[in-house]
Amino acid sequence: MRILSGIQPSGRLHIGNYFGMMEPSIQLQNEGDAFYFIADYHALTSTHDPAVLRENVRNLAIDFLACGLDPEKAVFWRQSDVPEVTELTWLLSCVTPMGLLERCVSYKDKTSQGFSPSHGLFAYPVLQAADILIFDSNVVPVGRDQKQHLEVTRDIAQKFNDRYGEGLLVIPDARIREETATVPGLDGRKMSKSYDNAIDIFEPTEKALRKKIMRLVTDSTPVEEPKDPTNNPIVLLYRLFASSDEVAEMEASFRAGGVGYGAYKEQLFQRIRDYYAPMRERREQLAADIAYVEDILEEGAKKSRVKAREVINRVREAVGMRAM
Amino acid sequence: MRILSGIQPSGRLHIGNYFGMMEPSIQLQNEGDAFYFIADYHALTSTHDPAVLRENVRNLAIDFLACGLDPEKAVFWRQSDVPEVTELTWLLSCVTPMGLLERCVSYKDKTSQGFSPSHGLFAYPVLQAADILIFDSNVVPVGRDQKQHLEVTRDIAQKFNDRYGEGLLVIPDARIREETATVPGLDGRKMSKSYDNAIDIFEPTEKALRKKIMRLVTDSTPVEEPKDPTNNPIVLLYRLFASSDEVAEMEASFRAGGVGYGAYKEQLFQRIRDYYAPMRERREQLAADIAYVEDILEEGAKKSRVKAREVINRVREAVGMRAM
Repeated sequence: MRILSGIQPSGRLHIGNYFGMMEPSIQLQNEGDAFYFIADYHALTSTHDPAVLRENVRNLAIDFLACGLDPEKAVFWRQSDVPEVTELTWLLSCVTPMGLLERCVSYKDKTSQGFSPSHGLFAYPVLQAADILIFDSNVVPVGRDQKQHLEVTRDIAQKFNDRYGEGLLVIPDARIREETATVPGLDGRKMSKSYDNAIDIFEPTEKALRKKIMRLVTDSTPVEEPKDPTNNPIVLLYRLFASSDEVAEMEASFRAGGVGYGAYKEQLFQRIRDYYAPMRERREQLAADIAYVEDILEEGAKKSRVKAREVINRVREAVGMRAM
Repeated sequence: MRILSGIQPSGRLHIGNYFGMMEPSIQLQNEGDAFYFIADYHALTSTHDPAVLRENVRNLAIDFLACGLDPEKAVFWRQSDVPEVTELTWLLSCVTPMGLLERCVSYKDKTSQGFSPSHGLFAYPVLQAADILIFDSNVVPVGRDQKQHLEVTRDIAQKFNDRYGEGLLVIPDARIREETATVPGLDGRKMSKSYDNAIDIFEPTEKALRKKIMRLVTDSTPVEEPKDPTNNPIVLLYRLFASSDEVAEMEASFRAGGVGYGAYKEQLFQRIRDYYAPMRERREQLAADIAYVEDILEEGAKKSRVKAREVINRVREAVGMRAM
């Protein structure tokens, strides 16, 4: 079973990214052939500065490896090191009805957020389909918001098979990621870079991390009064890092009163700091040895490219071109 | 000076194609670095049968070589043997405004002719831009109907340079082909496969060629009467193959009367037959030695790919990826 996942390099990762996408991906590397790539072709639709793109790609690679992606288990590469995916994008485009792309909500969403309405943004779902189909992927873990794109991929693959032969492309299945918990941001809304309410996994310093957590918005219940733990962002965040007993303990303390929010924030801060401490250490080692990180990505590209070449050649022959 | 031209393999070539595009391209191979390719990626937007695509590509290669394309002078290859062009297509897509493509008339034209409205058909001008830009082409000979697409290419190249650096992509110039003569079809309208009024360069047999020419629509002026040579399709076609003295002679005979259209048609038939006779012979030799034709195409791909790799690497580095 091949599990495919692409991660867009769009800047520093936050705790919402970690629990929403990184941690589940890292778990999945034990369940099958994990194929994970850094989606730099996709990033070009929003990142126009070459230096920023390079930095984002490098940081994403380091972050993923630091957080537990194991290159012995998962194949991990930079999308642009396997350019066959752009060739398949063209071949798929020729069977993709315009209506299918016009119905995709992401293009409208992104342009309404201020992204320039480029053809790349519009054609994004076709590249995404190629990303998946060129590796004969069986399973694609996606968040609920990505479900439509996977449907588009399945649709395109089926149309391609209808035209050129059943079984030519493997039709992938979505594995919808259960949102184990909504990760609240500093202001209580969903944690998101665009809301400017995010706690990064790797804040620059311990001090910066504490300062951020102290900014968590709470109500003005006085110290001595009982507090409602339900939907309190401190508790919601603590839940991600603590055992259920520990959470129950904090909730009981909330209800009992006598402890101020500041003390709970300190407790949360320490927990987050300790949780990421070993990853932070690993991150520093990796950042000091970029050549090693680069080797992993190149090795990953070599491995994934073998599969990509196999599939593109199969497809080329099917449409009337020659294998190369 | 690099001259680029792409020819879509869409079936047998007719006399209109010959004078409109083949013959001028063959002349141009003496004027600069001629880079000519068989546009099979483009053909996928309309040719869905792999066997037909293969046959069309093979026939186009043979026809061009038979008609005088000289592989010692021109680099001649199959587009799909240089897949770098699809990678550049994606990179260009990210700077291409949707509005630019939406304003292209060819998509509307083709869908109104019954082509299925695929994303490939819509994105066609971006692939065409990549075809041109990946070889640092200076000059692109185009018919008037293709002028808009070249403007789109120049626009995209300029936007790319604006974002990533002036001079990164070479901005090509159009060389508008003067329509030396409109080539009339059997019914007097412009010769076109879609009107079913075409005379192929290589009709299967001499008999088939004569039969076609006898179908040329003329009026019912009796044999003995004078005839008007102006806009007469026999004269218009004859003009393409005969000297001006010979044309003047035929026109005088028209005006004098006493000769029937059938006799003029016979004269035209013989002239066309004789004009293409050496090419037909060459064509038969080539068709009997497909390995030789294949060698030429592969050699051409090798040569053009060196340039394509140079440009794609330059572009990859400029956008923040690594050269490969």
